[in-house]
Amino acid sequence: MAGGSAPGASLVDRTVAVLAAFDERHQRLRLADLATRSGLTPPTALRILRRLVATGALDRDTAGYYTVGRLIWDIGLLAPVQTGLREVAAPFLQDLQAATRATVHLAERDGDAVLYLDRLSGVTSVPVVSRVGSRLPMHATGVGKVLLAHSPADVQQRVLAGLSRHTPYTVVAPGTIARQLDRVIKDGYATTQEEMTLGACSVAVPVRDSSREVVAALGVVVPSLRHARQRLFAALSVATAGITRELSHS
Amino acid sequence: MAGGSAPGASLVDRTVAVLAAFDERHQRLRLADLATRSGLTPPTALRILRRLVATGALDRDTAGYYTVGRLIWDIGLLAPVQTGLREVAAPFLQDLQAATRATVHLAERDGDAVLYLDRLSGVTSVPVVSRVGSRLPMHATGVGKVLLAHSPADVQQRVLAGLSRHTPYTVVAPGTIARQLDRVIKDGYATTQEEMTLGACSVAVPVRDSSREVVAALGVVVPSLRHARQRLFAALSVATAGITRELSHS
Repeated sequence: MAGGSAPGASLVDRTVAVLAAFDERHQRLRLADLATRSGLTPPTALRILRRLVATGALDRDTAGYYTVGRLIWDIGLLAPVQTGLREVAAPFLQDLQAATRATVHLAERDGDAVLYLDRLSGVTSVPVVSRVGSRLPMHATGVGKVLLAHSPADVQQRVLAGLSRHTPYTVVAPGTIARQLDRVIKDGYATTQEEMTLGACSVAVPVRDSSREVVAALGVVVPSLRHARQRLFAALSVATAGITRELSHS
Repeated sequence: MAGGSAPGASLVDRTVAVLAAFDERHQRLRLADLATRSGLTPPTALRILRRLVATGALDRDTAGYYTVGRLIWDIGLLAPVQTGLREVAAPFLQDLQAATRATVHLAERDGDAVLYLDRLSGVTSVPVVSRVGSRLPMHATGVGKVLLAHSPADVQQRVLAGLSRHTPYTVVAPGTIARQLDRVIKDGYATTQEEMTLGACSVAVPVRDSSREVVAALGVVVPSLRHARQRLFAALSVATAGITRELSHS
């Protein structure tokens, strides 16, 4: 999310660019990195940073690293990002986690990536890279494959044209992914086997609203799919049916 | 969180003041309200708002209402607000929710208020006003009473000097609260009975780190405490013991 700041951009734009220099892989930044990532000269970046720290928007530690402050955390939580869906889905995510003991994800498509809206950690220790607010590639995650299968053709084309490798098991052949997407529509669920993270497999299904539109995907992450696929699919189906029913009422 | 903006304040400060005009009871604001709450003239507020909407920091709907945008949601989630504690506590919150079917809260003290760090909704329908990021009064909530009992004397004095009423059952007599705080220390848990919200009772216990410092409070919300107090206290004790043990390892 490093937003370059054009020379003529207003100070408001530059302020936002400094904030947007932070992302999941850049949660602690020094002045030099912040300046580079926001497209500003270090003196301009420093001037903005001082005010952002003074207002509590950012914090600065004694080692000179900046982090996002509690003020922005507070304000960010007020954004109506699928608030309705997340609230409706929350109890079903908990039921699913209790029934499967697996890590549970609720995600939606955001452009050409999958955005994680909610997550409950499982009891079994599976390495999971996603957290709430994460964006991950669609072709390498279970929830992503579901959302990709239900995406417009132009999104599918762009994603298939740029398949990135994350593990030795990531599928990067466009033809194979295209066939998997057809299966997702036919079977009603998607799976991954260590395609994003070694040691993590997943099963995911679409979440539909009352008009049967796919509005999100629900997935579970487990160490292995052996013998578990049908059981997890059944649990996921019950949970999404409940979410769809609640969405119709609300 | 309405931060007045001084006349000589920089445009960065004014930009932050516009963002900070949003709070839990003001999630959708019009220009006039935003100007008032940020201490700016409407033309100045509008100039900043246009750039904030253009950068995705805020959204504006067709009715003229502004809301916090997904960009700020993204950035806010990167703030290291008790990230360690929340991650360590998450599986124990889930176990507690599964065992009690109640709404579960993890909270810490933030100044003279209780800040809700995490929340799992229960299955039984109890009216709960808190959500992640909420600040509520300490004297009227279970987690708040626990944190107040373990607060420095000056915090206790300030809170006892300004007890606000929220329901007919809110305790607003300083002497009664003071006696309750003594009981919290002695018994190891706090309770509330419809003191914040009608129909909602709670039991809460302190969460300690490896040096036995109280770093947070863990609570459950239920429709009634009848016969449930000891059972809920037992479940809470098991969960907090697990959190303390994990905090010692990490």
